[in-house]
Amino acid sequence: MLDPLFRPASVAVIGASNRRLTIGYRIIENLLESGFNGAIYPVNPRAAFVRSIPAYPSILDVPGEVDLAHVIVKNTSVPGLIEECGRKGVKVAIINTSGFREVGGEGIALERKLVETARAHGVRLFGPNCQGIINTDPEVSAYCNFTFTRPLPGPISLVAQSGGVAEVINNRLFELGAGLRMYASNGNACDISIPEIIEYWGDDPGTKVIICHIESLADPAELLRVARKVGRRKPILGFKSGRTRAGARAVSSHTGGLMKEDTTTRLVFREAGMLSFRDQASLCEAAYALAAQPLPAGKRIGVVTNAGGPAIIGTDELVEAGCSVPELGEATRRKLRAVLLDEACVTNPVDLMATGRPEHFREAVRALLDDERIDGILLSFITPFFVDCEGVAREVAALVRGAAKPVVGVVMTRKASWQVTLRILRDAGIPVFDLPESGARALAAMTRVAEGRAVAKEAPAVLSGHNRGAAAAIVDEALARDRSFVPQERAFKLLAAYGLKTPPAVETGTLEQTLEAAAEIGYPVVLKIERDDVVHKSEAGGVIVGLRDEAELRLAFEELAHRFPRAGSRFLVAAFVTGNGPEVILGGKQEEGLGPVIAFGLGGIFVEALHDVEFALAPLSMRRARELIRSIRGYPALAGARGRKPVDVDRLADALRRFALLLADNPRITEADVNPLLAPLAGGDPIALDARFKVEKSQEEHRG
Amino acid sequence: MLDPLFRPASVAVIGASNRRLTIGYRIIENLLESGFNGAIYPVNPRAAFVRSIPAYPSILDVPGEVDLAHVIVKNTSVPGLIEECGRKGVKVAIINTSGFREVGGEGIALERKLVETARAHGVRLFGPNCQGIINTDPEVSAYCNFTFTRPLPGPISLVAQSGGVAEVINNRLFELGAGLRMYASNGNACDISIPEIIEYWGDDPGTKVIICHIESLADPAELLRVARKVGRRKPILGFKSGRTRAGARAVSSHTGGLMKEDTTTRLVFREAGMLSFRDQASLCEAAYALAAQPLPAGKRIGVVTNAGGPAIIGTDELVEAGCSVPELGEATRRKLRAVLLDEACVTNPVDLMATGRPEHFREAVRALLDDERIDGILLSFITPFFVDCEGVAREVAALVRGAAKPVVGVVMTRKASWQVTLRILRDAGIPVFDLPESGARALAAMTRVAEGRAVAKEAPAVLSGHNRGAAAAIVDEALARDRSFVPQERAFKLLAAYGLKTPPAVETGTLEQTLEAAAEIGYPVVLKIERDDVVHKSEAGGVIVGLRDEAELRLAFEELAHRFPRAGSRFLVAAFVTGNGPEVILGGKQEEGLGPVIAFGLGGIFVEALHDVEFALAPLSMRRARELIRSIRGYPALAGARGRKPVDVDRLADALRRFALLLADNPRITEADVNPLLAPLAGGDPIALDARFKVEKSQEEHRG
Repeated sequence: MLDPLFRPASVAVIGASNRRLTIGYRIIENLLESGFNGAIYPVNPRAAFVRSIPAYPSILDVPGEVDLAHVIVKNTSVPGLIEECGRKGVKVAIINTSGFREVGGEGIALERKLVETARAHGVRLFGPNCQGIINTDPEVSAYCNFTFTRPLPGPISLVAQSGGVAEVINNRLFELGAGLRMYASNGNACDISIPEIIEYWGDDPGTKVIICHIESLADPAELLRVARKVGRRKPILGFKSGRTRAGARAVSSHTGGLMKEDTTTRLVFREAGMLSFRDQASLCEAAYALAAQPLPAGKRIGVVTNAGGPAIIGTDELVEAGCSVPELGEATRRKLRAVLLDEACVTNPVDLMATGRPEHFREAVRALLDDERIDGILLSFITPFFVDCEGVAREVAALVRGAAKPVVGVVMTRKASWQVTLRILRDAGIPVFDLPESGARALAAMTRVAEGRAVAKEAPAVLSGHNRGAAAAIVDEALARDRSFVPQERAFKLLAAYGLKTPPAVETGTLEQTLEAAAEIGYPVVLKIERDDVVHKSEAGGVIVGLRDEAELRLAFEELAHRFPRAGSRFLVAAFVTGNGPEVILGGKQEEGLGPVIAFGLGGIFVEALHDVEFALAPLSMRRARELIRSIRGYPALAGARGRKPVDVDRLADALRRFALLLADNPRITEADVNPLLAPLAGGDPIALDARFKVEKSQEEHRG
Repeated sequence: MLDPLFRPASVAVIGASNRRLTIGYRIIENLLESGFNGAIYPVNPRAAFVRSIPAYPSILDVPGEVDLAHVIVKNTSVPGLIEECGRKGVKVAIINTSGFREVGGEGIALERKLVETARAHGVRLFGPNCQGIINTDPEVSAYCNFTFTRPLPGPISLVAQSGGVAEVINNRLFELGAGLRMYASNGNACDISIPEIIEYWGDDPGTKVIICHIESLADPAELLRVARKVGRRKPILGFKSGRTRAGARAVSSHTGGLMKEDTTTRLVFREAGMLSFRDQASLCEAAYALAAQPLPAGKRIGVVTNAGGPAIIGTDELVEAGCSVPELGEATRRKLRAVLLDEACVTNPVDLMATGRPEHFREAVRALLDDERIDGILLSFITPFFVDCEGVAREVAALVRGAAKPVVGVVMTRKASWQVTLRILRDAGIPVFDLPESGARALAAMTRVAEGRAVAKEAPAVLSGHNRGAAAAIVDEALARDRSFVPQERAFKLLAAYGLKTPPAVETGTLEQTLEAAAEIGYPVVLKIERDDVVHKSEAGGVIVGLRDEAELRLAFEELAHRFPRAGSRFLVAAFVTGNGPEVILGGKQEEGLGPVIAFGLGGIFVEALHDVEFALAPLSMRRARELIRSIRGYPALAGARGRKPVDVDRLADALRRFALLLADNPRITEADVNPLLAPLAGGDPIALDARFKVEKSQEEHRG
């Protein structure tokens, strides 16, 4: 419970000061200015008062109970003071001081000591090297922070790893006119973490929308767990910086974290149902709209405008962000034709023309609110001097208040001259932007939230037809023989145990065994060298395909034996399968805390050269598996190009699910790939032509 | 010459009015308020004065000369008034009235009549259905427009087809603090066109940067010609709306233009060296930065910050926009280490920490201005209350004034509290943004302008080794025989005439001829049906490859003869070439006014299914040909994936140039494709395996 942090009844400031340009002064000033609804206890051994409030030489001298203490003293003194806080019964300490993990070397040790001390004395820590928190709830009004960008109160809560970014977002929300509920920037986050804060806000009735900025993801699994839970009720908007190599290098020097690839964060955001943003402007705009309006039921947007040009720009942006701007139904068109100006355009966008009057706006917005084929409205409004713009705002405001569909406003004007018009719209809860791109993107973000909710509600279909025991036995056997890879023939059996088809195959040692196996399998066959140290067999020349008879197989055997000279070489002879389905690749890797991450891509150059691969967490629902297939850039190649038959996406999705479940059920398979899998055409079966499973003993087995 | 439009010595307002909420009042009001430096002549048959200025019953009664007349009367009266304007000697008329082409039907006829009348009487037209112009040049101060969003004077000129978009951009520039030179929104553009306006601004010494918004491109060739010329001296920033199908449909109802694909506009922007933008915010931000700062010499950006988080976001954005944020040189690092705070990060971004003081900013900016490995600076600045922020601004301002490298500022603050700091930076000519993304994108746009200039300066290498006469003769021959396609064997000769290799091939009619030809060419061969009506031969089963001997050829011949039963069928037998180079596709199509548009893509599913194809105008310089090859998404597949040899890009570019020149030299080839072309590996030759040329008689030949 983070109530002592976000709803403190009393705040001590250890390091309070009367010098105005210090953090120890500023925090007290901020608490006073924000009208903090609790006691303030300055702690300073050399001052009787700070900002007219009695000060105490030490935290132990404070007369009342202390929920929250700011600590703003020399870094090396912090652990000692935390011990005192513990003795005093302080519940949470915000450590504003820097000079810990982020400076490396001794700072790392100091932070470790700090954490140990706090644990030992039952004090929760926020920071160090951080700004603090803000809570605008009028019952609390806590500005426990040394910045001074006072927010408007409202329903958006914001947590950001970087204090600078928290401030930028806070400022942007303010400029949009969007209100903030709680604010937290926890810097090094040695104890209280971002997921813990999000979980807390999940239960805060005043928080409707959560913004979360991350530079380096400390505990992906915990964020995933919390965001999945909270996201069902409140949209969580994620922003990750350090996406590029240069950016990640900068994160590394900024936070002392490791330089990491961005894939995991993107995957966690997606799997947790968080909306992912690439710039702060769009992030804040989406939060503003989400906080103000109901979610749309679908992605079909009606645009109402009194200027064609901006509405076209809004339409482009809506469509590119995944919405549609459909033609209106005949009934709606007829209704509009009867009430609008003759020169109005009764299509979508509905163009009322610059001369459109308040009643025209009212009728157009009403018609779209009533039209079952429209899920949300983008109102694009210029303010002509010859129109009663306040009247327009009043008519729209009256309709939108309490409407079940979202209405997002774009008012393009010189703000200073049209404050009343803007105010009327805003007071009715309509988010108002000044560019059509902003309004369109915000509305599109709302449709993504609604879509995510629908996905989350879908019950995952259960898989059947797999044999857990058989698979586990194969892994056992490989580990028992101290192999780090499951032999190819057994790998096929592993797939078969989970219902995935493979060609008939036999592992052999000698030419005679090989010929015999081939005779049994039937020609044509393929011959492969079977060695753990040859990872990319094809590239290494260890695979010869299309052997049509014994003579060809004999030659191929000799060639492989010659190319890979080693006593006791093993071979795999398998049926040579050719199909019309294109080749795809499945991959899987166990990731700390997340379980197996499943990769999917097209064969050929797509994965290797074009990096066209997408990821998902196992196990996969049918919907997620389909989504994964469709998310690669090369998907149109599977969907049936000219002269090609389309792949059976459902059967391919089923194969992905089986592969994912195999890895989820068997964490001792640390890496796996099926390369290639022949994708199925309509009614056909996917067939795995090659498979590789890396296995490792579990922790228990290692200890045993 | 558009001086009478943009620098009128006198303006008549035909349809002037004393009613405040009319355009006829507003324009006179606007001229007065802007301090117009010339005579105003209200024309109104029923008023003695308008806004205290003597009015005249007709334009013919105006005593002095009239450069420019606003026409704000009923649409059907406009042609008659234009005739009067002609008799009066009015040079240009701005037709604010709507009800012309954009309403279809009779409006189209009315607009035609208007244009004819104006031509007959020597009056240039601006509009109809338009706003007008603004010129902030203090010598002129003309606000010939019925809006009232007064701009700040400055060096950016803005032309937008849509009046609404013009206003939105004008407003945005105002909010950024960026100054406007001239403004034009010409609506239906029946006479004075956007290219003509851009050409005029090319010679306006007060215009440094040009913004151009387009909904439907009326004359791509003219825009290309003008933008190429003007763009050498002044950056032209293009914004096209109606990119999506729904957006284009809206454009169609907005302007009465045809619904068009966006490809041509994108191509013209690119070929003309215009910067292309997808949203108005980035467009305005780039214009602001380009107007304020010198161009960078390269793409290497140094970031100076006092907050890590926002600088990381700026770094991500810079890198994703094509810039680099390189490590600093050892000398620079040493220099910085000596003068900055101990806790500062002496990497790139240079993080001075929140406690960084004015002298630290000075030293960091100076070091980067002096560092030869840095081409431009992004200054990312939060305003801590404990720092002398005005001092920071003063130090930076002093260094940046007159510096040869661009410095773009991002100041993240509550603006109201830090106006002086912002003012100091702005007064030194530093563009200041409030989000790091904005500053980074603007700086990246500047590097793209600089790069475009460098490309434009490059002299195109001349091609040799092609035979124009031989190619023309083949086209002549096909047309003489009334063929709409050049026969395959001759198509190969056409390529050969421009130095492109093809396999040996012979056109045949009978089996005997076919076998004979194959014997001469040498096995293996490929056999193709040769018919104009079979466009996609492979998909239609009209191509059989890899025929290894006479027996296989004989069977193949019978199969094709059976599959395409028609008397007198023709065949092509050709050497069966297999190479390691991947297959690419070249295409070409003559486009009205632009000449041949060349298309390039990868073979296989890339062009058809993934629409991974890019375009360029012929002829191609070597640099443009290389750029075209590298611009497709699938380029990494050519650059050498794992286990693949890279394509020889220069030799492939040479082949593209030859193909483009062939089409440029022979406009009677209206469509062409080489599909596939085997791309060359290092030192190899590209080989065209199939080619198709559609031919059409020239206008003269048609008439002859």
